[in-house]
Amino acid sequence: MITLSDIESAAERIAPFIRHTPLVPATALREPVTDARLWLKLECLQPTGSFKVRGATNRLLTTPVEQLRNGIVTASGGNHGLATARAASVAGVPANIFVPRSITPAKLDKLARWGAQVHVVGDVWDEANEQALVFAAEHQAAYFHPFADPAVVAGQGTLGLEILQALPDIDVILVAIGGGGLISGIATALKALKPSVRIIGIEPEGSPTLHACLQAQQVVRLPAVTTQVATMACGRTEERVFELARHAIEQVVLVSDAALLDAARWLWFEFGLAADLSGAAAIAALRSGKLALPAGLNVCALVCGAGQEGI
Amino acid sequence: MITLSDIESAAERIAPFIRHTPLVPATALREPVTDARLWLKLECLQPTGSFKVRGATNRLLTTPVEQLRNGIVTASGGNHGLATARAASVAGVPANIFVPRSITPAKLDKLARWGAQVHVVGDVWDEANEQALVFAAEHQAAYFHPFADPAVVAGQGTLGLEILQALPDIDVILVAIGGGGLISGIATALKALKPSVRIIGIEPEGSPTLHACLQAQQVVRLPAVTTQVATMACGRTEERVFELARHAIEQVVLVSDAALLDAARWLWFEFGLAADLSGAAAIAALRSGKLALPAGLNVCALVCGAGQEGI
Repeated sequence: MITLSDIESAAERIAPFIRHTPLVPATALREPVTDARLWLKLECLQPTGSFKVRGATNRLLTTPVEQLRNGIVTASGGNHGLATARAASVAGVPANIFVPRSITPAKLDKLARWGAQVHVVGDVWDEANEQALVFAAEHQAAYFHPFADPAVVAGQGTLGLEILQALPDIDVILVAIGGGGLISGIATALKALKPSVRIIGIEPEGSPTLHACLQAQQVVRLPAVTTQVATMACGRTEERVFELARHAIEQVVLVSDAALLDAARWLWFEFGLAADLSGAAAIAALRSGKLALPAGLNVCALVCGAGQEGI
Repeated sequence: MITLSDIESAAERIAPFIRHTPLVPATALREPVTDARLWLKLECLQPTGSFKVRGATNRLLTTPVEQLRNGIVTASGGNHGLATARAASVAGVPANIFVPRSITPAKLDKLARWGAQVHVVGDVWDEANEQALVFAAEHQAAYFHPFADPAVVAGQGTLGLEILQALPDIDVILVAIGGGGLISGIATALKALKPSVRIIGIEPEGSPTLHACLQAQQVVRLPAVTTQVATMACGRTEERVFELARHAIEQVVLVSDAALLDAARWLWFEFGLAADLSGAAAIAALRSGKLALPAGLNVCALVCGAGQEGI
């Protein structure tokens, strides 16, 4: 699907439009979550509040202008929708964003402020996406897939370059999984530049998208998606995404929705950070005891999105 | 009251207990607030959610253990109370925190989580403080003043060292004022190390504490404190604090409570940052048009506290 050079090109392309977010050591904690040395990559500080701005911006900048004329459409649990709305705003074209009913009020507010037309459809992303595809075809608008798109995956992969630059001694990275675009992009970058890095994914118990694929050794559709976490709910990934991720991911940790909420509250208490539940996923894996990492390792937890859930 | 060497000693003393917070360039904005180059110092990422942990920790570590036996008492709009509660937790002694009714629910929640005994008293800090002093005397507990204390001011001043280290080319710093401890500490550090830095304070129109002193050329008590922003409400500063600040401060900008709220919303929209209203004060001064800074200047805005007000 993509290689390191696609990610390096993306990094250069999107640099003027995104932020180089800080990587902060998680020190001076009241309630530590691991024996390892923990670092937080604060992607919640990106424009639109998440890493998704990387992929959507790369998609925008690699799309011929004439294809954007009728606007941009996507379906999203919130963060990719915001990033796409911003891409449309940069391009000066309308954005039509299809979201499931589980989207949070904070993300709806921000979508409106970006000037997007919001369509609330269905219980999960997959249902919203069906309508987004119909709408895009009807209006001959550009459709930005949240993960099954090489330009989007390459954009998310730029995070791997940035983290490795800031923390060359990284041993483990913890990445939340929705559809799989983020972890497959990061995996592509890290496996090319530092193959020893252990890549660990986190999924909600109610949406074990890649976990199920890894068990079946092929892409499968989940019989049901029961998590309430819109940004991590996805019934099925895509073959190319899975090919990038399958040999790179060491492990997928499943956590409950309650553990995600508890982790978001921890981030708020310990760091004053307003993370969404996907942004708290790495902490949830550690704090719930589902993942134990020994002292001495350098571990990067991606705080991938902002939200009000933990406050 | 204090000198640079007090601040340098404080920095060394408190380092293991606080965080070296990131200074991030405010780029890729949807709605810029100034022509100058703007940097945000994210003190909202400190333990307890604000810079106040610097002063309270320095106070703790310079207090003889026997004086702490009966616990620690303070009065606070929230942030110093949290920092003091944490200091007591570090010391293993009880914390009794007196707060005005205007304190936010988020800060009350965190105070409880730090194990503090909270006393809600009066409409403004000054009233809560009277009761705190009575309580401290009755119980022979240590009283940590939020600003009229050399150890506290020296602790807050460590921010000046850290900002100068990260941004040696700084031209202007924007600092929210409550009682004046933060700005006088920072002023002491910056005027010693780089006298050309312009120090601009921001106060609510309903609590122009230092603004009134600067006009009167002496410490005065405000006839009334009408702001609803608990962390910036203070009827009177203290002579020693004013002496440090009076010649260092170039200007105090007054902003409305509404402008503070608008600025907190801006930080949430642009950066996914949950700032309290004092944390948004620097942005309020710029965004409201009360303060115009030309292109080419390097301006540091202190995001001094975390809160849920802008979400």
